[in-house]
Amino acid sequence: MIDYEDALARLLGTASTLPVERVDAANAIGRVLAAPLASAEALPPFDNSAMDGFALRCAGEVIHAGTVIDVHGLRAAGDGEARADDGAWEIMTGARVPDGLDSIVPVEQVETLDDDGGVPRIRVTADVTPGQHLRRAGEDLQAGAVLAEAGTLVDPALRMLCAAVGIAELPLRRCPRVALVNTGRELVDDPRRALGAGEIRNSNGPFLAARLAAAGADVVACRTVGDDVDAFLEALAVAGDVDVVVSTGAVSMGRFDFVPEALARLGATTLFHKTRIRPGKPILAATLPGGALFFGLPGNPSSTAVGLRFFVEPVLRRMLGMPDERVLELPLLAPYAKRAPLRMHLKARVVLDAGARACVEILAGQESFRIRPLLEANAWAVVPADVDTLPAGARVRVVSRGHLEPLGLYA
Amino acid sequence: MIDYEDALARLLGTASTLPVERVDAANAIGRVLAAPLASAEALPPFDNSAMDGFALRCAGEVIHAGTVIDVHGLRAAGDGEARADDGAWEIMTGARVPDGLDSIVPVEQVETLDDDGGVPRIRVTADVTPGQHLRRAGEDLQAGAVLAEAGTLVDPALRMLCAAVGIAELPLRRCPRVALVNTGRELVDDPRRALGAGEIRNSNGPFLAARLAAAGADVVACRTVGDDVDAFLEALAVAGDVDVVVSTGAVSMGRFDFVPEALARLGATTLFHKTRIRPGKPILAATLPGGALFFGLPGNPSSTAVGLRFFVEPVLRRMLGMPDERVLELPLLAPYAKRAPLRMHLKARVVLDAGARACVEILAGQESFRIRPLLEANAWAVVPADVDTLPAGARVRVVSRGHLEPLGLYA
Repeated sequence: MIDYEDALARLLGTASTLPVERVDAANAIGRVLAAPLASAEALPPFDNSAMDGFALRCAGEVIHAGTVIDVHGLRAAGDGEARADDGAWEIMTGARVPDGLDSIVPVEQVETLDDDGGVPRIRVTADVTPGQHLRRAGEDLQAGAVLAEAGTLVDPALRMLCAAVGIAELPLRRCPRVALVNTGRELVDDPRRALGAGEIRNSNGPFLAARLAAAGADVVACRTVGDDVDAFLEALAVAGDVDVVVSTGAVSMGRFDFVPEALARLGATTLFHKTRIRPGKPILAATLPGGALFFGLPGNPSSTAVGLRFFVEPVLRRMLGMPDERVLELPLLAPYAKRAPLRMHLKARVVLDAGARACVEILAGQESFRIRPLLEANAWAVVPADVDTLPAGARVRVVSRGHLEPLGLYA
Repeated sequence: MIDYEDALARLLGTASTLPVERVDAANAIGRVLAAPLASAEALPPFDNSAMDGFALRCAGEVIHAGTVIDVHGLRAAGDGEARADDGAWEIMTGARVPDGLDSIVPVEQVETLDDDGGVPRIRVTADVTPGQHLRRAGEDLQAGAVLAEAGTLVDPALRMLCAAVGIAELPLRRCPRVALVNTGRELVDDPRRALGAGEIRNSNGPFLAARLAAAGADVVACRTVGDDVDAFLEALAVAGDVDVVVSTGAVSMGRFDFVPEALARLGATTLFHKTRIRPGKPILAATLPGGALFFGLPGNPSSTAVGLRFFVEPVLRRMLGMPDERVLELPLLAPYAKRAPLRMHLKARVVLDAGARACVEILAGQESFRIRPLLEANAWAVVPADVDTLPAGARVRVVSRGHLEPLGLYA
């Protein structure tokens, strides 16, 4: 039995970053950049007007209220280049400013004068400061600037910026391919089938499938097998070429806990079996002959959830080329005492106290068979193995429900 | 020009909750419950063992260490009912406890005795407390209990609980169907096409499409049109039966801001045009003859983002039958001063100070044409119209990037 940190180090020492693929930017949301993203274009691409109004030439001097200026042209959004050495050009928001002009007076600060059939004229009714209401080319992003670093999750804001500078494709990490195998002759997959006397429904499978997708993985196979080495090995075989296999059940001390035997038959190399944690102590990890990482998670729902969050997700993160998660340590809302010299991973809730302090509440119902408390949890709290009791206010490590989600803050 | 609160009230007074549809539970992640969800089954469905070990009958009395007990049978996970009035049954984790037995002794607290060819026997090596290591039927969820209320977002935890109690289908709100129309002859959709001299790339379209999907909407149409009433009306016509139309651009004071005219030709009823906010003041809302709600968002990127988050999303939420968002008020990291008597919606970042207090930082680069600061923002901060200056520590209203996301907490 080893400590969590050692177990994780063994896993991370085995995991390697996945290959790069180029993906249409429209399909990149939720994916991870494999290289820094630089812009070939400036944003804005040209000097343009921040207001509907008139473009003028200040040339470094204030144009005072009351000044009358000839109007030489009109620029709407979409109009091309123009050259103007003096005078005013009427201009719409976002339109390209004629070369030679350098300031914008808003339409609300302009009086239109009768033109008597000649050149139209305006009188400005407020001082015009050089450069006012002008958006300079490259002011938001210079050509060549890096938009985002390798390891960044693509979100709608990054998608917007890519679209704004004409980035059509992004270099992304391939999604980790994951096969799921739920073991146990007691498991029923079909929700419409009535349960027999000793049967239970497979809830780990749907949970893992949903959570793995949210964690950036591609669940390519999902199978339920009885307590049967051959069926288990067949499920692995048909899953094909995957990066990760996650199984549930059959890794503990029971007579029918056949996963170690199955792995031995397969020629897998065990990385560890059992760690000093609760829940999920019997967790087993191995490398399969084809190179995939195997996670044998205990079958209790909380053990499965902890195995996913604290063992599988850090590995997915490594495969995706993401930096380690930032660690937050938040004060406990209430004292906490534990009985076993194990590292605890506890269903928890981050809450704000009246002083806007983010505190963590350890939820009731930590037994590993319970599912319902997971509805209430918005975080996991971690209490190290060598700590017995913690007073209210003591800081504990807190992580979000999934590695791609921020730690949520609730009133 | 009206206040934000009045504008929102008009919108919410017009929006109605969408119809219910029954959806396979496997496809329900990210959708919203339309009715309370009750369980027909108890969880666990039967009394079962929390450990690998032996089931015993304590009948309310401690069985003391050293007691020797005959072993009458074996129960593995998946085995059906059995009856036992006394003695011990070997039992695996999760297996159904024989009727009549009421406590579990873990295998680590048992010595197996030689059976001399007769009945196998064990000696317990620690006291056995009545009910220990037993999971009672219904202990996590009783049959008939409500799992989740109407308006709840289905997440992986709720998916797990549904699977655990055999809920095959969920009553969900239909997703709001949204048509997007980006206006402006300056807009270029194809990222591979070089920009002409006055052209810019369409970044609002991809942003809105991504954010609307994250907000629970179904973007059924997406079109870019020039500054052209007919093309705009055609885009609305081909979008077909939608609940919401979101357009960008052409709602301000410029000569080519044709949306009001297009709406008039369509026979739309304007709810408001212009509100006392920044950015996004020219926002326009209307009801279309077919009943859809129309949002004319100004075309600057921040104005579009604010229009979506503060006008469109509350309406989507209402259509989805969700309760209003909880409001968090967080202390400002630094003083803030504004110049206009407008309600400000500011790109912001929630950060933790050394005392674990969640503070909000107003980011640099609030001009509405800028996109890059949206990468840094993890929240929106709101400063009311009637406030001019705020000292550090003053509380301001803060919302997350999208109504279905928690407000994220970052180190």
